[in-house]
Amino acid sequence: MSIVTRLARLRENMAEHGLDYLLVTQPENRVYLSGFPDRDPSAGWLLVGVQSGFFLTDFRYVEAVRAGVRGLDVVLATPRLSDALVALLGQVPAGRLGFEASHLTFEQHRELAERLQGQHELVPTTGLVEALRQVKDSDEIAAIAAAVELTDRAYEHAVGLLRPGITEKQVAWEIEKYMREHGAEGVAFEPAVAAGPNSAVPHHSSTDRPIGEGEPVWIDCGARLNGYCGDLTRSFCLGRADARFQEIYDLVLKAQLVAEAGLRAGLTGVEGDALAREVIAAAGYGESFGHSLGHGIGLAVHEAPRVSRTGTEVLVAGMVTSVEPGVYIPGWGGVRIEDVAVVEEGGIRVLTRAPKQSIIG
Amino acid sequence: MSIVTRLARLRENMAEHGLDYLLVTQPENRVYLSGFPDRDPSAGWLLVGVQSGFFLTDFRYVEAVRAGVRGLDVVLATPRLSDALVALLGQVPAGRLGFEASHLTFEQHRELAERLQGQHELVPTTGLVEALRQVKDSDEIAAIAAAVELTDRAYEHAVGLLRPGITEKQVAWEIEKYMREHGAEGVAFEPAVAAGPNSAVPHHSSTDRPIGEGEPVWIDCGARLNGYCGDLTRSFCLGRADARFQEIYDLVLKAQLVAEAGLRAGLTGVEGDALAREVIAAAGYGESFGHSLGHGIGLAVHEAPRVSRTGTEVLVAGMVTSVEPGVYIPGWGGVRIEDVAVVEEGGIRVLTRAPKQSIIG
Repeated sequence: MSIVTRLARLRENMAEHGLDYLLVTQPENRVYLSGFPDRDPSAGWLLVGVQSGFFLTDFRYVEAVRAGVRGLDVVLATPRLSDALVALLGQVPAGRLGFEASHLTFEQHRELAERLQGQHELVPTTGLVEALRQVKDSDEIAAIAAAVELTDRAYEHAVGLLRPGITEKQVAWEIEKYMREHGAEGVAFEPAVAAGPNSAVPHHSSTDRPIGEGEPVWIDCGARLNGYCGDLTRSFCLGRADARFQEIYDLVLKAQLVAEAGLRAGLTGVEGDALAREVIAAAGYGESFGHSLGHGIGLAVHEAPRVSRTGTEVLVAGMVTSVEPGVYIPGWGGVRIEDVAVVEEGGIRVLTRAPKQSIIG
Repeated sequence: MSIVTRLARLRENMAEHGLDYLLVTQPENRVYLSGFPDRDPSAGWLLVGVQSGFFLTDFRYVEAVRAGVRGLDVVLATPRLSDALVALLGQVPAGRLGFEASHLTFEQHRELAERLQGQHELVPTTGLVEALRQVKDSDEIAAIAAAVELTDRAYEHAVGLLRPGITEKQVAWEIEKYMREHGAEGVAFEPAVAAGPNSAVPHHSSTDRPIGEGEPVWIDCGARLNGYCGDLTRSFCLGRADARFQEIYDLVLKAQLVAEAGLRAGLTGVEGDALAREVIAAAGYGESFGHSLGHGIGLAVHEAPRVSRTGTEVLVAGMVTSVEPGVYIPGWGGVRIEDVAVVEEGGIRVLTRAPKQSIIG
């Protein structure tokens, strides 16, 4: 989808909300609407009108924005973005000016309200651009697939280095290095490696703990490539697995495969989440699956939609979501298996190719 | 300075502003007041009262906060931080509740105002914690010195790899790798390497441009170690330098040495900045020095004070600042030389030890 199309769709959303202008300050939203890849929060603001569109930026970025951005007029802001915004808004007809209420700070809003002196009506908005971002076009899906593929390769590189005694942090760093040295502009998030009881904590951060033979381990990582994120989790034991691990591993894998077979456009997030949750609950581990089945992924590693117990939105073709059931037992450990998939009309298409092995080495 | 002392000083600031409570949501401010090192913006909020103090956090962090934080009561927030905050505020006497106006979003403020229903008066504040952070204690200065030392070593490692043809991005990545593999938890900012005309852009981001012999180059990098930041810039040519480079290099170095000889407690930021600016202006390059002489450095790589043309604050002993004059000529290139120094009563103590060489190789 071209930038022009994205702006046109945004203007439809704006019209539904009775907005004449929208101020876009959230970095990923700016990237999405402009195509300018820099995510520095201070790199610029967009002002989108019913017909006009402006990219306000400072001396650090103005040349690159001018060279790279089509469909928006580039404004050099001196000295501050807010100065350029107020000047621009002084030249256009009075109207309803939406802003991103979950991103603009109290102080930015206060300054803007004071300087506009009622000339425009400031209207808090939430999720106008995010609603567009959650449905991906084919170029975006290709970009996500490439990020997922690099993530898979980084994981397989790490698997090749695994041996008892290597620490969580060493593995995490090897994954990041591989990604960075194979094209990623960075990691989508710090790779997390959890071994033994650490793996019972769904959001564990890698530590200096060495990985031991036969204990539950998971690796959760994602590359960022051409702006888009990958996300992958695999669980395993080194060398040997006891019956408990194998039971839980098989259960989580079954829950994932059932969900991947059942997810499709037309389900709500709640219905999608339930596909895996029912499998896990039926086995008596319902209380041990404390997080959502999935989250949208794109320019951000966590974005709409939510495939969760509270996700009321209906899945539509072109959404991209993680599918990641997990079971966590405090003091023992946990198992999570995560793929990334594209929602299609009759089902989903799983992008992730990394092998699923309960025992490595 | 212990956490208890920091909280006591903050309470003095709060009293001056007539505040009964302060809500701290800014991540570095939270790290400073709690000692809990995680900077994840969502890891928690602090509520500081005249006698009480609370660290609100969620299930992901609560065990680590309980284990690591002294002097604050730890509250497990379920489901959201704002829920725990509203509950806490419902149990304490009505009062004036300060919040960080440059960090809290419009929506967070709106929700809080609505849920507090006038029970407490919400008061916007700016810089209460930042004012404390700008004067460092001896432990903080030691931590900054260690980050500066690691930054120096990473730079010298990169110098050892320099040869014509190596790209800006390759050098930047080698610096980051060295830092990460020698103890840094990360970079204070993406290392910037600028060669040829790119070096005329003070905020240049590294590209795939190969570094050529005899052209102006600068490297700007900083490690983050134990929470504190280093910051270093060096300029040079590979192999040979022409007369123009040598003239500008010598001028910038002279400006830096004059500033380092003259900076001391008691000067304003403007007076400090002028020390270097006058040297550069006297040589006819005043218009080519477009940024400030220095910025404070600590938990953040850019913080108070500002040693700049608008920095009205008086420097006091214990502040830590960069000293970084620069001259930039569009189309040709630029020279910047940056050290980090501690402000003392009679002068400054430069922490940076990286060699200053106008020609390398």
